[in-house]
Amino acid sequence: MSVFTPVSEGQLAAWLKGYSVGVPVALEPVAEGIENTNYFVTTTQGRYVLTLFERLPAGELHFYLELMAHLARHGIPCPAPIADVSDRYLSQLAGKPAALVTRLAGASIERPGRAECGELGMLLARMHLAGRSFAGYLENPRGPKWWRLAAREVRPFLDAGRQGLLDEELRFQSLYRFPDLPRGPVHADLFRDNALFEAGRISGVIDFYFAGVDALLFDLAVCANDWCLVEPERDRRLDEAKVLALLGGYHALRSFTALERGAWPVLLRAAALRFWLSRLHDYHQPRRGQLVRVHDPEHFREILALRAGPAAAPWIE
Amino acid sequence: MSVFTPVSEGQLAAWLKGYSVGVPVALEPVAEGIENTNYFVTTTQGRYVLTLFERLPAGELHFYLELMAHLARHGIPCPAPIADVSDRYLSQLAGKPAALVTRLAGASIERPGRAECGELGMLLARMHLAGRSFAGYLENPRGPKWWRLAAREVRPFLDAGRQGLLDEELRFQSLYRFPDLPRGPVHADLFRDNALFEAGRISGVIDFYFAGVDALLFDLAVCANDWCLVEPERDRRLDEAKVLALLGGYHALRSFTALERGAWPVLLRAAALRFWLSRLHDYHQPRRGQLVRVHDPEHFREILALRAGPAAAPWIE
Repeated sequence: MSVFTPVSEGQLAAWLKGYSVGVPVALEPVAEGIENTNYFVTTTQGRYVLTLFERLPAGELHFYLELMAHLARHGIPCPAPIADVSDRYLSQLAGKPAALVTRLAGASIERPGRAECGELGMLLARMHLAGRSFAGYLENPRGPKWWRLAAREVRPFLDAGRQGLLDEELRFQSLYRFPDLPRGPVHADLFRDNALFEAGRISGVIDFYFAGVDALLFDLAVCANDWCLVEPERDRRLDEAKVLALLGGYHALRSFTALERGAWPVLLRAAALRFWLSRLHDYHQPRRGQLVRVHDPEHFREILALRAGPAAAPWIE
Repeated sequence: MSVFTPVSEGQLAAWLKGYSVGVPVALEPVAEGIENTNYFVTTTQGRYVLTLFERLPAGELHFYLELMAHLARHGIPCPAPIADVSDRYLSQLAGKPAALVTRLAGASIERPGRAECGELGMLLARMHLAGRSFAGYLENPRGPKWWRLAAREVRPFLDAGRQGLLDEELRFQSLYRFPDLPRGPVHADLFRDNALFEAGRISGVIDFYFAGVDALLFDLAVCANDWCLVEPERDRRLDEAKVLALLGGYHALRSFTALERGAWPVLLRAAALRFWLSRLHDYHQPRRGQLVRVHDPEHFREILALRAGPAAAPWIE
């Protein structure tokens, strides 16, 4: 969500004439994020986020926007896309596909405890249950096929040890695909900065632009690797109490299958691999932008190495 | 919106298991209204209104709920229906069709001034523009056909003078149907108590259960007869400045056609007739309910008599 494409107040006012949200009163660029251009937009009607999609294919965009619309009308606190007077969620602004979504209240938290991990687990379960009736389909664009492509591109930049870890993990994952795991639309990127809290409750889940259909358990693995660390900056081991809170909150609303229990350690590794690869990719092949922030790939190499090691992956019961 | 059908906390908790809105924490009956049973429901996720539909036909309910969903996703501040896990807006609770919608912030105002009438005009225009792409169709259930049925039922209760006014107006309206007026989904019941304000802006338009497809101008006439009176309790003449603010706010976003100007005095009478009839009906044939409030029919007889008299119907320009 950095600013790659500037939008002027005049451009915004003209574009908003095609919507039913009143007149703009403020336009403010958003610094976070690495995929799209985002602005906070305030109108006489309310608060919105304007997103200009820099490189996502149109087919994927429709999936993301329809999924958000579906979840929002099921009561999931996610951004609700606003349709224009032609009844479309997507139109053109400054030469890019653009969408307007509601802006949610609340703030992300850097150091979630057990209570917040439990809240997150319940939210994930509600999201997965609401997603069952969603008809759209997009295979997780950052799934195993993409891992192979990305690995080929970043491998030359790695030293022998890292190449070995990467090759080994790709081979391991190829042996454990689990087609029988419960599947559905997953957020697939629900890091701490993509959840907003207010008064101890999750008030928003944002940034669905990596969503796709995958194992539901993948969402939990992504979250565990970010929310449930002993110390996010220093100690990347899993904090057992936080993992149990996450899984327990989820299980209370949607019971895990036996296979999910068995697949948990593998999914934790898969989730670590996916983010190691994308961070390597963004690090070695950065894009131009006014405010781009690139994350350190080493963080997820360490997480992958730990998850692939002998430490137990905590499970409930 | 009175309580005709009681709902217990246990019934609510069981029913909400079919939704993705978290766990209930409060349930509070709503006293206002004369058509449905309403409760305010608070869950761990948010604030909602639960409505049990007492006598509306299922076909109409789908129109209302889909229209609200359509307008909400266009940014109109109206209640957004929440879909259940089977992806339906309507399910059964306590033996009645029931729906859960978002509860909006703000409060209605009893004595709107020019500024609020201007706000209302703009909101109506945005609602009508957003409604253009709505595919659902339901002829206004309180339109001319219903007038004739209702008149037949209430006429025996009226004295000779009132019977004369009613007969005269029905005859007059039958001569002026204006099939060429711009038409679309209209709220058709946007009285002051169906609009919520916050910080001088309209934060909510509620109670769409009289909506239907009709002349767009009918919405403005209903509003003028309630929002733009010199003194709602004592002097039912139109306050010219308020009417001009209402029409001017609207016209700035959706230009009136020439025919709309010509039809304005007739529509003001039609809107008065419609509510005189429904109030007569509710007054002479009341329903049982714990908290029913019946409005005085005389208010709208006086408005109709004034609109049918020689006083000019203010128009912009």
